[in-house]
Amino acid sequence: MDPSFSEYLQARRAEIEAALAAALPGPPDCPPVLDQAMRYSVTAGGKRLRPILCLAAADAVGGDRSAALPAACAIELIHTYSLIHDDLPAMDDDTMRRGRPTLHVVAGEGMAILAGDGLLTEAFALLARVPAGGDSRTAARALRVAGVIARAAGATGMVGGQALDLASADIDGEALRRMHSKKTGALIRASAVAGAIMGGAPDAIVDRVDAAAGEFGLAFQIVDDILDVEGQSAQLGKTAGKDAAAGKPTYPALYGIPAARTMAEECLQRAQSALEDANLANSQLMNIGRWIVKRSN
Amino acid sequence: MDPSFSEYLQARRAEIEAALAAALPGPPDCPPVLDQAMRYSVTAGGKRLRPILCLAAADAVGGDRSAALPAACAIELIHTYSLIHDDLPAMDDDTMRRGRPTLHVVAGEGMAILAGDGLLTEAFALLARVPAGGDSRTAARALRVAGVIARAAGATGMVGGQALDLASADIDGEALRRMHSKKTGALIRASAVAGAIMGGAPDAIVDRVDAAAGEFGLAFQIVDDILDVEGQSAQLGKTAGKDAAAGKPTYPALYGIPAARTMAEECLQRAQSALEDANLANSQLMNIGRWIVKRSN
Repeated sequence: MDPSFSEYLQARRAEIEAALAAALPGPPDCPPVLDQAMRYSVTAGGKRLRPILCLAAADAVGGDRSAALPAACAIELIHTYSLIHDDLPAMDDDTMRRGRPTLHVVAGEGMAILAGDGLLTEAFALLARVPAGGDSRTAARALRVAGVIARAAGATGMVGGQALDLASADIDGEALRRMHSKKTGALIRASAVAGAIMGGAPDAIVDRVDAAAGEFGLAFQIVDDILDVEGQSAQLGKTAGKDAAAGKPTYPALYGIPAARTMAEECLQRAQSALEDANLANSQLMNIGRWIVKRSN
Repeated sequence: MDPSFSEYLQARRAEIEAALAAALPGPPDCPPVLDQAMRYSVTAGGKRLRPILCLAAADAVGGDRSAALPAACAIELIHTYSLIHDDLPAMDDDTMRRGRPTLHVVAGEGMAILAGDGLLTEAFALLARVPAGGDSRTAARALRVAGVIARAAGATGMVGGQALDLASADIDGEALRRMHSKKTGALIRASAVAGAIMGGAPDAIVDRVDAAAGEFGLAFQIVDDILDVEGQSAQLGKTAGKDAAAGKPTYPALYGIPAARTMAEECLQRAQSALEDANLANSQLMNIGRWIVKRSN
């Protein structure tokens, strides 16, 4: 990894960790038992890919990164809630996540459901908090971003993809792509789009950032599937081989690993081309795309 | 019930039912299996108390009721999601609601969790949809209302109250009041506040509407507890006597039914006084308060 990109990641991650810790309301307004459950999952680490992508998009379009920070944190809260609910016994029934027992194992199913509900709701509370000194333009952008994120996270996006996953058994490549574009891709796209909007980009630029992030999202899922086959539980921090064992369709199962790797590389090429259209090919966004494809967890 | 108030309720309910049916995204963008699950619960009827209160607050402050309609529907979607999740086996484990089997009984636990998540998220998508011809003032109000609703529904409000309920066993009257003020009261207050804000009320008026709705919320819970003891399952549309049987604290258990009835009447008197401060005592808002206390389900 390029040392300057590595420094960029580290610096953004520090901003995000600090902002996430301050984003949750905390006691006494929030009951301690719920606060602990929400923080258990929020502070479990993870790559912070989505919020970093959000901040990098604001940077790339020449915007004020701090204006995108609430949206970046809101998206990470939503991502975290989705993992909590996905891990529940009634869904994927996972007991390990990021190298630790899942929340329902340590806090019980009821509290895990509530912690997820709380994180999802607090994400929108955060988005709606009008920044100090924010003008009416900032409020309009924040409302627009709330809509982008809600549509990406809701029934037409992530939740819809999860419903397709839950209901589907044998599906073909095209249906697999459609399911993943909702389940994983929509929120990754929304991360970049939210950053570009909060950074003040005009619609034509937002559109190209969206196209590039759509390719990142697809590449992310393909690589995730490959890691699920190849990976070790310790490295992934979750149970490896689980999707394949459950008979869920994966890219390697449908196309084989070499062809799946090529598909991920082709996503990067299409992303590069979209960013070139917007004169953003030299921003950190492409480095994030390469990181997604090269990662080992 | 005053015939003109009865007509008012019927007219508002018709507006809300039509808007709710149009509020959900639907196929093909939303997977049919998820859309059916969400609509099963949204169309299950219910009093529509919260959205009616929202519209009545907009009316009371002399505002444009149609500007409050998205907020009214968003709140009902959030109320509906909370019932779905509360009914889950890991929570209250209820199998009947509004005279029909609960969603997890008919669609499975996983799909019920997702339908709840979807309804909560679509509520914010709806709030964020900038109305046609809406000016920047409308956008600023909508963002403010999104924050009011998120805080009322989230970890400091409804979800927090549910967490307290889940974690609590023996609690005293003061703790009971605190738990209910989050679990039920917060969203009832937010309904009226959202209506007043979208109706363009100045902050001093919003504050008095908030105070009155806080009393309505407390009265609602007291009457709910009384109905749980006195009621028939058929009339309530859910299993009666359940809270008492579970050893959960209720107002009748702590104070007896006659004293609990008096407490509900006192709530109405304090609400009346708050509304008088704002010259709103002759609006439909007080009729809604009386309806809450007189209802039989």
